[in-house]
Amino acid sequence: MDEKLPTRAENYSEWYNQVILRSELADYAPVRGCMVVRPYGWSLWEAIQQSLDRRFKATGHVNAAFPLLIPMSFLEKEKEHVEGFSPELAVVTVGGGEKLEEPLVVRPTSETIIGSMYAKWVRSYRDLPILINQWGNVVRWEMRTRLFLRTLEFYWQEGHTAHATQEEAEAETRRILDIYTHFAINDAAVPIIPGKKSNAEKFAGADRSYTIEAMMGDTKALQAGTSHNLGQNFAKAFEIRFLDVNNEQQYAWTTSWGLSTRFIGAIIMTHGDDKGLVMPPRLAPIQAVIVPIFKTDAEKAEVMPVVDRLRQELKDIRIHVDDRTEVTPGFKFNDWELRGVPLRIEVGPKDVKNHTVTFARRDIPGKEGKTFVSQDQLSGRVKEMLDEIHTSLFEKARAFRDAHIHDPKDYAELQEVVKEGWAYSWWCGSAECENKVKEDTKATTRCIPLDQPGGTGRCIVCGQPAHEKVYFAKAY
Amino acid sequence: MDEKLPTRAENYSEWYNQVILRSELADYAPVRGCMVVRPYGWSLWEAIQQSLDRRFKATGHVNAAFPLLIPMSFLEKEKEHVEGFSPELAVVTVGGGEKLEEPLVVRPTSETIIGSMYAKWVRSYRDLPILINQWGNVVRWEMRTRLFLRTLEFYWQEGHTAHATQEEAEAETRRILDIYTHFAINDAAVPIIPGKKSNAEKFAGADRSYTIEAMMGDTKALQAGTSHNLGQNFAKAFEIRFLDVNNEQQYAWTTSWGLSTRFIGAIIMTHGDDKGLVMPPRLAPIQAVIVPIFKTDAEKAEVMPVVDRLRQELKDIRIHVDDRTEVTPGFKFNDWELRGVPLRIEVGPKDVKNHTVTFARRDIPGKEGKTFVSQDQLSGRVKEMLDEIHTSLFEKARAFRDAHIHDPKDYAELQEVVKEGWAYSWWCGSAECENKVKEDTKATTRCIPLDQPGGTGRCIVCGQPAHEKVYFAKAY
Repeated sequence: MDEKLPTRAENYSEWYNQVILRSELADYAPVRGCMVVRPYGWSLWEAIQQSLDRRFKATGHVNAAFPLLIPMSFLEKEKEHVEGFSPELAVVTVGGGEKLEEPLVVRPTSETIIGSMYAKWVRSYRDLPILINQWGNVVRWEMRTRLFLRTLEFYWQEGHTAHATQEEAEAETRRILDIYTHFAINDAAVPIIPGKKSNAEKFAGADRSYTIEAMMGDTKALQAGTSHNLGQNFAKAFEIRFLDVNNEQQYAWTTSWGLSTRFIGAIIMTHGDDKGLVMPPRLAPIQAVIVPIFKTDAEKAEVMPVVDRLRQELKDIRIHVDDRTEVTPGFKFNDWELRGVPLRIEVGPKDVKNHTVTFARRDIPGKEGKTFVSQDQLSGRVKEMLDEIHTSLFEKARAFRDAHIHDPKDYAELQEVVKEGWAYSWWCGSAECENKVKEDTKATTRCIPLDQPGGTGRCIVCGQPAHEKVYFAKAY
Repeated sequence: MDEKLPTRAENYSEWYNQVILRSELADYAPVRGCMVVRPYGWSLWEAIQQSLDRRFKATGHVNAAFPLLIPMSFLEKEKEHVEGFSPELAVVTVGGGEKLEEPLVVRPTSETIIGSMYAKWVRSYRDLPILINQWGNVVRWEMRTRLFLRTLEFYWQEGHTAHATQEEAEAETRRILDIYTHFAINDAAVPIIPGKKSNAEKFAGADRSYTIEAMMGDTKALQAGTSHNLGQNFAKAFEIRFLDVNNEQQYAWTTSWGLSTRFIGAIIMTHGDDKGLVMPPRLAPIQAVIVPIFKTDAEKAEVMPVVDRLRQELKDIRIHVDDRTEVTPGFKFNDWELRGVPLRIEVGPKDVKNHTVTFARRDIPGKEGKTFVSQDQLSGRVKEMLDEIHTSLFEKARAFRDAHIHDPKDYAELQEVVKEGWAYSWWCGSAECENKVKEDTKATTRCIPLDQPGGTGRCIVCGQPAHEKVYFAKAY
């Protein structure tokens, strides 16, 4: 804690790690590539969970729980799926002291085991749609890991739905993309771009994948949530069939979609600054911290009753009073700045005398972020200020993103701009052009945004006619 | 769904399985010994989670997440712990296509991995207490499995705390036992007996284990939640040490405590009857179901607007309107009885005319459970009725339990009464007497209740002086 945090300019990657460790969001586990999500990090995840879960339930989804362990043979039923996931599997070969006849994989995702249950449950069109979500943990044996961004085990929600028609499945896939978009913008203040993945970048086993893509503080892209239209691929692999209204057997149409603890990485790298975390107010585990300020016992006797009263008045927001006596107010200021609490409320003898408190905004450092507020208006002003900080964080992040999105005039310029930014360019849609960019620059297609300019252009790589624009960027 | 549910008297075990499958609480998974918790079952678990989580947080606990995979060597650090758990382990030996140097076990419980982190986090007495809980899944390789009661994978919360003194650790262990007791009685309407486990029955690695024990509808006992004082056993195994106020190195004192999806089994077997589930109102996924009743379109046009209005008025309870058109009201009645919805509200043309609704209580079948309630008083009456049903379920279960607890006069009578009930008897505390009962009758000591009669007696087995009374019973 004593050494200074590296700045983002000095070493972005080390800044990221140190912010997480020092703010106690997470810690390295004694198992390679695994993390411990500490209470401060987990309460952020709980806020994310509540925010999404409310939206899922409002659109008719229900939660359930499917097994962690999946027979290896299940994965093999969908060809692309097993090819995509088999290099990343953790395999249980021994149970209760005996070698298992069939190895079980620790789920890397649950399309297969859930597909097998839907096959059992679905008989008629009346059983559809099934709109189930699951909150849980999955394991993917990654070689290069980063806290929150890529860990062997991570936490997520995975939705799995089954429908009677292709149209309904596509509508569901898009509805979820809308929910992710709404959540990211309105609760996390993360300006994301919703779009479609290229064939090369789509989920193993999907017909079509959608994503929300965010730009991090180092201009790299981060895939922050995905929604997949699985077509009939899993329905055919697992025999999810139903009698339709005409009494004919049909295969169902399925979707899957997920958002994970990786999103915490997106929050850190969208809003964080050289002092540490900056929590978006609507998800912040602590929305405001009250720091009492006094030097003498007499001052303490003046200040603390006011602090206790204000704490009561603010009990419908997530409030914390830092009444530690072994550290100075200056230490506390740094500590809560590191942890990214959006609003600090200082109460000292002068405030008591003036019947005020002092607001200090996390997002605006120093004197400019300070205002004096009457104690009578406290509760209303705190809520307004939290909304103001939310909007301000979002606008700042959007401005940063837009300043780093370029429209290169030719392929040479594209190669330049993706070094520190994104290119938004016409693309013919061919895997060859996509691959060439990747090989030449390490940038990949991030998404074909839903919001297209219209018209046609020339592919930035090959010059052939192109109907869609795409974002190219280096990515986490 | 067509065949009749077996009665409890005919075949208790089959009644239990069929109730779960038909009410769609859970289903068998395609992996031996695993279950799928279906949406109806998971929403019951979510209600249990919220009920407990609120109590944990109100007493200063916070949630976090520790890894699923634990190095085998960690378990071996605590001798009793590894002996207790090693026969039940699922072991990952392959990761990312390669054989692992050290096998990883899928956590059967997390004392070891959490202990290793606490050793890293705790330096001084100022870092204590640590009061962390985790909601998650664990795997124990059981040979004989039952839905909810004993499955390879199950869901639970596991609390793990560390303290500076023995007294604080014991106080925490007891505080949690109080929370479990309060939850069981006040939210689940399950009359439990809180007490201490014998040495033979305590947790592998604990100094002392406490339990809440419940009696099921077949008079068998079910351990419904446990709280362990781990002494310094894990602190010594994992080097959880701190500098105390006198600047001296001390080992911490730790506790652990858990309540799992097994509790759903307790709810089913405490309240269920020959028609199916009976949900305790405060945890019921659906607290009241409105069934509109009409035969003609004209009647429908009268009834449905009233139903829609009443649904709005009841939106602060968990309400469901069964507006299916393809099934009859009689079918619906049976269906919701099977699923145990505490209160059915019927609205038919006569009700509309009289400005009333008809209440039908799940816990009192037939006409006696019916009352007519004015639509003007609906919301208040529904809440009162749910409270009334809660109390009634609790009293009924307590009366059943007390009627099946016996005070045998000698060992011969003890052997008789534990065939269909519990014996509450003096016990000298020796493992020999405990073992003799187990061998002769299959009954084990369930708990030494906190609430003792006082005084002394003679051990029901050996006749030696005894200072405590204990419950002997056959158990799940």
